[in-house]
Amino acid sequence: MSKAIPEPVTKLIDSFSRLPGVGPKTASRLTYYLLRAPDEVSLKLAEALNNLKSQTRYCSSCYNITVEDPCPICSDARRDHHVLAVVEEPLDVMALERTSQFDGLYHVLHGAISPVNGVGPDALRIRELVERVQKNAVTEIIIATNPGMEGDATAMYIQKELVGKGVKMTRLARGLPVGGDIEYVDTVTLSRALQGRSEM
Amino acid sequence: MSKAIPEPVTKLIDSFSRLPGVGPKTASRLTYYLLRAPDEVSLKLAEALNNLKSQTRYCSSCYNITVEDPCPICSDARRDHHVLAVVEEPLDVMALERTSQFDGLYHVLHGAISPVNGVGPDALRIRELVERVQKNAVTEIIIATNPGMEGDATAMYIQKELVGKGVKMTRLARGLPVGGDIEYVDTVTLSRALQGRSEM
Repeated sequence: MSKAIPEPVTKLIDSFSRLPGVGPKTASRLTYYLLRAPDEVSLKLAEALNNLKSQTRYCSSCYNITVEDPCPICSDARRDHHVLAVVEEPLDVMALERTSQFDGLYHVLHGAISPVNGVGPDALRIRELVERVQKNAVTEIIIATNPGMEGDATAMYIQKELVGKGVKMTRLARGLPVGGDIEYVDTVTLSRALQGRSEM
Repeated sequence: MSKAIPEPVTKLIDSFSRLPGVGPKTASRLTYYLLRAPDEVSLKLAEALNNLKSQTRYCSSCYNITVEDPCPICSDARRDHHVLAVVEEPLDVMALERTSQFDGLYHVLHGAISPVNGVGPDALRIRELVERVQKNAVTEIIIATNPGMEGDATAMYIQKELVGKGVKMTRLARGLPVGGDIEYVDTVTLSRALQGRSEM
């Protein structure tokens, strides 16, 4: 078996297998695809991988991933610098930007409090958030952590840290997902939708 | 939206998206995983990609992917050099090697005849196969192309090319997959299993 596969091939299969959600079958499929594809395809991917870390850093203000510091969002004078959306991950910034409904700034925590995984508040950018709120006259914080145990714990911790500092704190609404079917919605979401019902 | 994602990140997402079976969502998930993972993970993947093409070539005898030419299988004196298994792809060599039931050599066609995709016999290593059979006193050819229209067409074409050259030609058996359930087996496979039934 091992004889049939040359080392450069097994090494790439190994490297692909280390990615989340990529099993050994997918890894070898990708590798053999690249073997047949023009050299350029694998070389461009290699270059992009090399540049990923060397050309990016965290914004020293919001901790989103950026090339320039501060990031384009933080340095955009047209955005409302007094409102912060607190998110867990850079991908959440993208998701909120896609709505075009938010024109404040962000604060990326880089995770959520998770005692099971040994992630405490100190591992997140919560201290930096508190400092930022005090320094920059932030008036509202929209806590946009994920709707779940860890996101809720993180939201509660942040609320506790900021209470009495004169900043309005809100959380994203819970309820039925648009286009969802009541029949298939889980009970917790349905209960939240009931509790949060609005007048017509 | 575009502002929220720095260029090195979008470039890697683009490169990943070009791989088969990787959509834009998976591509960004992989990219953000790599951003958080130690530098080493992305650098090793980049290195493996760079080495993939530069350190491998096709074996000049069997056309499998190899570092040394001839490949370790073709240069293994303990294997039977008079029996060739003809396969479509290098991955098929691996699959057959895994069975440990075949000790002959291979011949990798790099595809199958497919008029729909514009792949004719000249695009495959069929001419090389015919030459090899004549030069090396090959006594048996096991045609192990995929069981399907294209694999069948390729097998028939090879048979036509080699008929009368004094070489025994066989194909892999068709029938029920081991562990399969007759109830769920497709009719074509079941018909083949009936036709190919063996005495107990």
